[in-house]
Amino acid sequence: MNCYKLTIAYDGTHYSGWQIQPNAPSIQHCLQEALADLFSGQRVVVIGSGRTDAGVHALNQIAHFKIEHEMTPNRLLLALNGLLPRDIRVKKVEIAPLHFHSQYSAIRKEYHYHLYLERVMDPFRRLYCWHLLRRLDLSLLKEAAVLFVGTHDFTSFANEPHAGAVSKNPVRTLYRLDLYPVEGGMRLEFEGNGFLYKMVRNIVGTLIDVASHRLTLTEVLSIFEAKDRRRASRAAPPQGLFLVKVIYPEENFDHESH
Amino acid sequence: MNCYKLTIAYDGTHYSGWQIQPNAPSIQHCLQEALADLFSGQRVVVIGSGRTDAGVHALNQIAHFKIEHEMTPNRLLLALNGLLPRDIRVKKVEIAPLHFHSQYSAIRKEYHYHLYLERVMDPFRRLYCWHLLRRLDLSLLKEAAVLFVGTHDFTSFANEPHAGAVSKNPVRTLYRLDLYPVEGGMRLEFEGNGFLYKMVRNIVGTLIDVASHRLTLTEVLSIFEAKDRRRASRAAPPQGLFLVKVIYPEENFDHESH
Repeated sequence: MNCYKLTIAYDGTHYSGWQIQPNAPSIQHCLQEALADLFSGQRVVVIGSGRTDAGVHALNQIAHFKIEHEMTPNRLLLALNGLLPRDIRVKKVEIAPLHFHSQYSAIRKEYHYHLYLERVMDPFRRLYCWHLLRRLDLSLLKEAAVLFVGTHDFTSFANEPHAGAVSKNPVRTLYRLDLYPVEGGMRLEFEGNGFLYKMVRNIVGTLIDVASHRLTLTEVLSIFEAKDRRRASRAAPPQGLFLVKVIYPEENFDHESH
Repeated sequence: MNCYKLTIAYDGTHYSGWQIQPNAPSIQHCLQEALADLFSGQRVVVIGSGRTDAGVHALNQIAHFKIEHEMTPNRLLLALNGLLPRDIRVKKVEIAPLHFHSQYSAIRKEYHYHLYLERVMDPFRRLYCWHLLRRLDLSLLKEAAVLFVGTHDFTSFANEPHAGAVSKNPVRTLYRLDLYPVEGGMRLEFEGNGFLYKMVRNIVGTLIDVASHRLTLTEVLSIFEAKDRRRASRAAPPQGLFLVKVIYPEENFDHESH
């Protein structure tokens, strides 16, 4: 039996998200179809480090699958990219230890959220940013960001998981939430030991409400205390969100595709 | 009578090019439709600084139109962007002198061409780069680029204009052809006093053939001398090409949309 670890980039625009759903295109389905084609119709289950929603993108999503069949990482990479649609690319294939699990072994994740703040949207970024026409108070935005860093019960910033998901401990540690100016807007970087469902988008929505004077810093603290999703702001739209990195304790596997 | 100058950005992916064609979506058609909606069905002809082909993009295409009706540049910008598809954006509206002509008044143009050179394509750049899997000799690429700079008869690097276009003087001056490394690839910058039909893409195709040892520097010189399009290489694909800037002698008009 072999365990393969995949590093995948995808443009989420035309997908209903990572996870397989009936009658909707998903990244997971595309990967499983490609693997079924490669391994003579065998059903291969590809497990991702976590779901991404419809319209959300990934620069380095991690997934794994187990199979009896053997194939060199390099040939697997070439064959998968030959079979996959062009908006999904396998960037790396590695042979992982059999105990490797893309979701359970992950110890840290990084997400970026892109804001576009100019009056006229850049047509090349329309599918990759949240275009905000509100005036933002950037010093308030920074002050609000600080409130989220650290270990908190993020219940108020988490949507109910979809049916079938196990209910989880709502305490997470956000190691950093940094703001970087980029041309025409801003990038918010989130790094944490894990993220609840829609947590990043709910935090971004709340931060923007603070920065546009719709919510005070004190109200953010009381939203945390309320442990009630209905208290926080609407989620920021999906197209600004990118899964950038998933980190595992053991990063050096034996056989890479390079 | 008023003359309006428009600065337009568009993602050319879903268009058959700038110019109106029967039964094919074009940028010019979208603009004229939006203006007809605004000005009670009046037919308004929008003239661009030049055509861009199917799949070619623009960061700052310039166009103009004349109309009796008056509207402030700012309101025209908002109304047009409200009516246009999201992959076409009017970035700026200015009132220009009546003698301004986006094509005939232009004295200089800048195009960029993007190459992607990594083995696995970045899915976010698939519609905006030429993905080259050939090994390139970058010093040869630079040497070849030098041969194109200056005033030359570019007949061998120009396709026949479409029906209806006037035949032109094939002598053009290329002020610069610079190469810049970018993440995963390279950007080629062309600045000249004008460009013949498909000239940039034909030059890029030829440069890449030199850099991949399919053509020698001496052969490039003999292609110039032959004045025969069939001698040069195949045109580089359209999606790597961006119209970046169009320059006019008088840059300061009175009324801007800012």
